[in-house]
Order: sequence, then C-alpha cells, then structure tokens
Amino acid sequence: MRATVLYGAGDVRVENVTDARLIEPTDALIAISRACICGSDLWPYNLMEPGEAGRPMGHEAIGVVEAVGAEVRTLKAGDVVVMPFAYSDGTCDFCHEGLHTSCIHGGFFGSVEVPGAQAEAVRVPQADGTLFVLPVGRDDALMPSLLTLSDVMGTGHHAALVARVGPGKTVAVVGDGAVGLCGVIAARRLGAEQIIILGRHADRIALAKEFGATDVVSERGEEAVERVRELTGGFGVHSILECVGTDQAMLTSIGIARPGGAVGRVGVPHYETIPAAQPAFYSNVTVGGGPAPVRAYIEELLPDVLEGRIEPGRVFDRVISLDEVPDGYRAMNERESIKVMVKP
Amino acid sequence: MRATVLYGAGDVRVENVTDARLIEPTDALIAISRACICGSDLWPYNLMEPGEAGRPMGHEAIGVVEAVGAEVRTLKAGDVVVMPFAYSDGTCDFCHEGLHTSCIHGGFFGSVEVPGAQAEAVRVPQADGTLFVLPVGRDDALMPSLLTLSDVMGTGHHAALVARVGPGKTVAVVGDGAVGLCGVIAARRLGAEQIIILGRHADRIALAKEFGATDVVSERGEEAVERVRELTGGFGVHSILECVGTDQAMLTSIGIARPGGAVGRVGVPHYETIPAAQPAFYSNVTVGGGPAPVRAYIEELLPDVLEGRIEPGRVFDRVISLDEVPDGYRAMNERESIKVMVKP
Repeated sequence: MRATVLYGAGDVRVENVTDARLIEPTDALIAISRACICGSDLWPYNLMEPGEAGRPMGHEAIGVVEAVGAEVRTLKAGDVVVMPFAYSDGTCDFCHEGLHTSCIHGGFFGSVEVPGAQAEAVRVPQADGTLFVLPVGRDDALMPSLLTLSDVMGTGHHAALVARVGPGKTVAVVGDGAVGLCGVIAARRLGAEQIIILGRHADRIALAKEFGATDVVSERGEEAVERVRELTGGFGVHSILECVGTDQAMLTSIGIARPGGAVGRVGVPHYETIPAAQPAFYSNVTVGGGPAPVRAYIEELLPDVLEGRIEPGRVFDRVISLDEVPDGYRAMNERESIKVMVKP
Repeated sequence: MRATVLYGAGDVRVENVTDARLIEPTDALIAISRACICGSDLWPYNLMEPGEAGRPMGHEAIGVVEAVGAEVRTLKAGDVVVMPFAYSDGTCDFCHEGLHTSCIHGGFFGSVEVPGAQAEAVRVPQADGTLFVLPVGRDDALMPSLLTLSDVMGTGHHAALVARVGPGKTVAVVGDGAVGLCGVIAARRLGAEQIIILGRHADRIALAKEFGATDVVSERGEEAVERVRELTGGFGVHSILECVGTDQAMLTSIGIARPGGAVGRVGVPHYETIPAAQPAFYSNVTVGGGPAPVRAYIEELLPDVLEGRIEPGRVFDRVISLDEVPDGYRAMNERESIKVMVKP
C-alpha cells in the first residue's frame, strides 16, 4: 500500500510499504477515508536529522473498518470510525478517569511499530477502546468537522478545560494554527466572554473572528503582554490556551495571565523548563495541559458537530490526494495553508 | 519599641526602632501577643547580602488592637486578632475571588514601609480587610494553633487545594518543615487516603505521622521518586504539596506525580524556571500555587482549630522572648527547632 514516511527535515515521501494488517487480536484494520497533516508533524518535518529510521506519519483519521481481531467486540467491518491520535484500551484506571493519553496499554500513532494514518490503511491497536463509531456515512458533508475530533478540536477543548474556561471568563489563545482556532471554538462553546487571539496570519485571524474571537493581538513578546493587559483592564486574562509549544509562547502565556489564572498548554513543548517560575508563583498562576485525551471528548463534542453548532472543519483549507502529501507539508510549513486534509 | 531587623546573612538583631503608629486612616495598630519565625525567613537569613538596608522581619502574628484609623469600621481597641502574612482590602475583585494575596491595595509585611511582626507592635494596613477578630482571649490555650492561621496552616491548606487533594486521593508532601507538616494536616482533613511525607528529620517525621502521614520517604532525588512510585503501585500520587522551594524539590514533585496529577507549590521559589517541562506535559501534570490567601481560609479552618479537630500549633517546639529572636533564627536554621514562637 501507499503510505507517508519522513526521512529527515523536508524529506517526506509517499512510498510503497508493506500492507497494514492485523497483528494483535485487539487490533482493527481500517481503510483511511480522510487523514490530515498536523501542526505537530511540522516539528519533525523541520527538525528531524537525516539518517534516522524512516518515520511513518499521520495520527488523525476517519476510516472504514475492514477487519477486526478475534477479541474485538464493539466494531465490525463497514463501521465508519474516528481514530484519535492516541490509542487506548478504554478500560484502565486512566481511561476511566478520562485521561486516555496515559492509558497503561496505550500509545501514539506514527512509529515503526504503530504506523501512521497518512496512508491507505492503518492498523489500530486496542480497537475497542480507541475507535469511535460515527452515525454517518463515509462521505457525509460533515466529514471535515468530524475529522477534527481525532485531534485538533479535542486538543483545543482540552486546552480550554485545563485553562478553566467558563462563562464570563476572559481568555487568550496563543497561536493561530488549527489547534488555536479550535481553541477559540472551544472557549466560545464554554461560555467565555472575551476571547483574544494572539497571531499574525490574516487568513487565520479572519477565521478566528468568525469562530468567536473578540480581539486580536498581533504583537509579540513584551509588546503582546502589554497589549493583552490593555485589553483586560490591566490585569490579564483568566485563561490562556497555549497552542504553540515554544519557550517564548509559554513566557507570553504566563505574562498575560491574570492573578489566579491558568495556562492550558497543548503545543508540543520544544523547551526543557517552564519559564517565569517566579512571576507565575507570585500571581498564583497554574500551568497544566499535555496530550489531549481526545477520545474522552468525542462523545461531548459530537452532538455539536452533528447539529452544526460548531464547525471546526473550516480549519481545512486544502484537500489533497495521498501522493500530494509532500506538497501538503510544504504548504502548511510555509503557512500557505492552515490545515491540509488528505483523501487517499 | 523593640523590633527585629535583618542586616545580612546570619546578622539578625533586635533593636530599638521608632514606635509603630497609625499612618493611613485605614490602618490599625496592634500590640503583638504572639509572633513567630517562618521557614521563609531563613532564605534571607542565609542569603541576604550585607550592606542592603536593614529589613524589618516577621509576618505572622496574633495581637491586640491598640488603636484604629478614622476609616476603620470593624475593629476596636481590645480586639484579639490574627494578622495574615499579607494585608488586603477585602473589597477588590481578587479579594472577592478569594485571592487576597493579589489584592490590588495589598502587600506583604516585612519591608521598610510596612515593617514586620517580630516586634512589640505593628502597623496593619487595610485593617478592616486584613485582620480577623478571634472569639477568644489573648492567652487562650489554643493560641499556638490559632497563630498558624496567619501563615503555615493556611499555606499548607492552599497547597492541598491547588494539588486537588480530596477523598480517596494519594498525596505526597515534599518537605517536613512547619508548612509541610500543616500540609499533612490539610491533606488528611480533606480526605486523602494515603499521605506520603518526604523528609529526613526524625522529630518532624514523628509529628507528621501523628498528623496523619501514612508513609515516610527519606530518600532524595531519583531514589525518592522510585520509592514513591513503589508505594503507589508504580504510578505516583494524585497530589503533591511542594513545601520547600528549590529546583530539586520541584523536580521530585513532578517526578512523583501520577499522570493527570497536580503539584501545589507553596515553597518560596528559589529557581527561575520550572524543571521537567516535557515529562510534566506528557503526563498532563499541572503545576500551580503561590502565596496562600490565608485570609480567605481562616473562616473555614477556625472551627476545626477551636473544636480541636486539628492541632497545627504542635509545630511550635520552642517559645522565646523577643530578645531571644536571633537565637531562634539559629535554632530553626540548624533544624534544632521546627518552628519558634515569639512572645514579646
């Protein structure tokens, strides 16, 4: 089958690989209907050293079940399913607590052992716990929004929950990528009164406003902090959704927090320590977040997608075939595209 | 009057200073009945550069109101009051939210402008908002425990709240000083099932056990992390009360957190960045905390003190006069005493 493999910075290839197949009795095999390229894929796309083993890419998908292992009980061939970016058994203590990304039998897609979804098909471990059967056909018009439940919409929602967004709260979303934009949707959905988007790409900012952003801050660093304070009576915001993953983004996030506020970080961290330990302390600012247990959120978010109350699928501004994936990476990396959907 | 002034590391003096007096119409003047030396006082006691302006010391006290300014409405001469370590107006947005340590008209005791309580008397700004009138006489037998409501008991409680301690939770308390010991009390009071104290001073550990600690870990660093994991089925604890303030204590705190767990840090941070940003992220561990709004907690904790359900006053193992304060610093610094009470 055809699948996407990254060999080094800038070197992403679609090539023939061994067909995906069932290995464990808890596996399902799904044919990919829709996949996408993630902002987090751009980190290795920019930083991976050549010479490492090729890395199968892709962790967001909707697909059709083709086959299931002997121990799979809740899925059958033909089911249309969302595949969250992490697999999880659905039965361990952490899954019961709603933290599926810490499942004791879980893990992440996109390794040699558990290959990626930017491919014609993918093996899904712990299929009963991982996959969520959708009540729609494989070509439903809502596919783009349903696809975001595999990662970016659930991730934005996670950031908002960790940042304690609620009715009447003031919120800042740091980063205008697909996750940041979904964070705006999540903040509005949870009742935020003021939603400030920090970003500087006109197309993304325009979409953020349509999603519910009330203010835009395009400055960076200390100027961004000052601008957010101006917009919030001098105090900063209650809730910060950090959707970038850099030291600078964290520094800004803590700098714009109102005393007692909370930062929900979901940008994959490319920093070793969290800055501003003392300012955060003296303001009683909380820093939390991590890989979003999107599996836990599908049930809550799905009705809003099905009934059209939220339209996170609007983050997709380009649809490509599998063979065009390398150009999709380029387009996202050059900020030519917000988020790219792949139809194998 | 006599008051304590720190001039440099190890150089603490009790000397004659200008009498405390009312300055603002919102001030109260209180005669100190009980004060104490705080673990946080030991930081400047060890690190202050000589040559800086002398620093009036002390931020925890119970006293008797001697005089009030023209705008003070809720206090009168003769009232026995607790003085929290921070003053606050009680009326601003942050005070209403229960975050009195971020009061927009607030601040901390122990500066040239707002001197300290290791003295015969102290001026209390924003007296209506700051002071809490006690329903007992000035020499009540409960004075030691009541005195802890000015800082250490409220601070331990804050750490426990931020760390999300609750019924059935597993808890670790990092640090066996007075705040850590009060953290044990707070964790037990909030229903924790397992309370692991990390410390290595026999007298403190013994008290921690009486307060409700179920396990003791005396190892440090990576060995401490391993030991806590052994005690918790390999996963770590839900809640960590970080009561030290060093980079190492934070590293341990994050290392022993169960996925999805929370660190409540109340040790005054002597580090610039929070370590282990990536492990904390991948485990969805939250780090929060800061100066405890102890004023907000007095009302909740007081009944338990008055009815003897908690006895945080047992952290005091030495009572000294004002003139003995320098030796009190030495005793606490050398871990000869857990916490020293001062009776001027």
